[in-house]
Amino acid sequence: MTLDEAVSHMGDLHASHPRIGTALRLMRNTSVGTRSLVDPFAEVTRFRTFGERMRRYAEAGTALGARAAEDALAAADTTVGEVDHLVLVSCTGYLLPGLDAHIAGRLGLRRDVRRLSFGQVGCAGGAYALARARELSAVRPGSVTLIVAVELCSLSYQPGDDRIASFVSTALFGDAAAACVVRDDRPGLRLDAAYEDLAPDTLGHISYDVDELGFHFDTNPRISRVVADAMPGLRRWLEEETPVLAPQPDFLISHTGGPRIMYEVSKGLGIPPAMFRLSENSLALRGNTASAVVFDVLEQTFDAPPRNGGAGLVIAFGPGVTTVAVTGTWVAS
Amino acid sequence: MTLDEAVSHMGDLHASHPRIGTALRLMRNTSVGTRSLVDPFAEVTRFRTFGERMRRYAEAGTALGARAAEDALAAADTTVGEVDHLVLVSCTGYLLPGLDAHIAGRLGLRRDVRRLSFGQVGCAGGAYALARARELSAVRPGSVTLIVAVELCSLSYQPGDDRIASFVSTALFGDAAAACVVRDDRPGLRLDAAYEDLAPDTLGHISYDVDELGFHFDTNPRISRVVADAMPGLRRWLEEETPVLAPQPDFLISHTGGPRIMYEVSKGLGIPPAMFRLSENSLALRGNTASAVVFDVLEQTFDAPPRNGGAGLVIAFGPGVTTVAVTGTWVAS
Repeated sequence: MTLDEAVSHMGDLHASHPRIGTALRLMRNTSVGTRSLVDPFAEVTRFRTFGERMRRYAEAGTALGARAAEDALAAADTTVGEVDHLVLVSCTGYLLPGLDAHIAGRLGLRRDVRRLSFGQVGCAGGAYALARARELSAVRPGSVTLIVAVELCSLSYQPGDDRIASFVSTALFGDAAAACVVRDDRPGLRLDAAYEDLAPDTLGHISYDVDELGFHFDTNPRISRVVADAMPGLRRWLEEETPVLAPQPDFLISHTGGPRIMYEVSKGLGIPPAMFRLSENSLALRGNTASAVVFDVLEQTFDAPPRNGGAGLVIAFGPGVTTVAVTGTWVAS
Repeated sequence: MTLDEAVSHMGDLHASHPRIGTALRLMRNTSVGTRSLVDPFAEVTRFRTFGERMRRYAEAGTALGARAAEDALAAADTTVGEVDHLVLVSCTGYLLPGLDAHIAGRLGLRRDVRRLSFGQVGCAGGAYALARARELSAVRPGSVTLIVAVELCSLSYQPGDDRIASFVSTALFGDAAAACVVRDDRPGLRLDAAYEDLAPDTLGHISYDVDELGFHFDTNPRISRVVADAMPGLRRWLEEETPVLAPQPDFLISHTGGPRIMYEVSKGLGIPPAMFRLSENSLALRGNTASAVVFDVLEQTFDAPPRNGGAGLVIAFGPGVTTVAVTGTWVAS
């Protein structure tokens, strides 16, 4: 779907909203062009009970996650039987057993695969999953970790919500499933070190209200301020631990979030705005696909790879407010 | 509350249920005596919207989880500032940011603490958290991991449900928060090795239906058969990897689940029924408190410790169906 369709829909639905002009302008400010949705737009925007949403999440999330996983395994020349760990990130539904168990069954993973399933890391999920994969590789050298990100953001569309944050969400978030394989003996991004930061007193800045209608996403414009405040600590860590900022990364795999977030990262870490081009591509083409963004940018990086030995930075933000960064080195094939 | 109160309530509420005699008999068969609930019984059993439940979960879960964490830190002579990792397990609510971020803030953990929050491991959660803590200790030797388990099962009481599984749940599950500290330089249980198993085609055996009323727990009596079938694989692993079953563990920290589950573990691993006494105590006194059980049994083990160097087994089962086992060695103070 296009941004125009979303703006037009919200404009019609909330025509009498006292701040409709501002709301629609903020929708256009997201820099999103097109997005993919798991269901037709008419279906996404009709009223659905929370039960309907969660059943759709289970069904479509399993199918899309498994397909992404199969594609990633093929691209990494890895068989299903080689997988030792499954790291799943998804914040757009809740079921028990989790999508991890559903996808493990669908793929036919070994029954002794260790499954780590995270439901609350939101847009930090891509970088976060890489941080976890790095730990698992360290614990079991030579092991194979499959990461799967499934985000069906459109299942949280709430026709009754008319807060400004709801307009922005309706313009910003796209549906996606992504996957990648982490193993020592393949070219690509070698994971070197990880950084995690929880900003104090910011629990309400990126959050859901959870009720009988489902998840109501809320975000606070102050989030860009929080990101700005988090940059000096990250910069210090990068300067002490890695050569990534000396003077700038060879490649950047940034979550998008939106133009304001990218601007603060650029300014705070001294990374040229041009290095966010792949993230901007992802935002324009797919919207903010939460934990999947990082893998979309990573795929683009594989398509036009950095030099062998190049130093890269993966960075993303999520609820908490949590900043996750992973440094890596490009290993050419 | 006592089992009698629960049986009496369900008997009155569902007096005209065609299988009421069977249902009440199965409630009595749970071996549960008393339980703690986060709210008064009248509040637990009144109709509450999913939104009300989740707000109560956030509020009480944060408070109880933080209190359990503070007690565990004090018992392990560990300061808040020493904690490097927080592993949170909780399957009885969903919020974003998760309880991990809420509890981290409440406790005043360092902002660089790595948080791992798992919402879908259910009753396997206690052993599962220990398995994750073992990995984190291996990645960062000398680090400190705080595990917190928060289970407010009573928030999933559904007055409208009259399936037999709902009667059993109403008799079986108790509310609890538990915590423990994992660090190399303290006496107690040294974590040696971990085992994880996903039984094929058993996704529906332990599950929630998630809808606008919240979580509807469902369990299948065939779960004891699945546990029985999982024992030969675990037994083989134990015999190859550890001395735990030669000829029997010095101590056992078993999830309870219920008498049938304990019977199958006893039979399948050749562990004398008497070794399940601490788990039976926990079940009788607190009900099945999901991921918290293992820590209740662990606390009882600290109270009457095994011999130094004794070999122990932690075992638990959850949705998937997942079996998690951790072997350990007792280190006397």
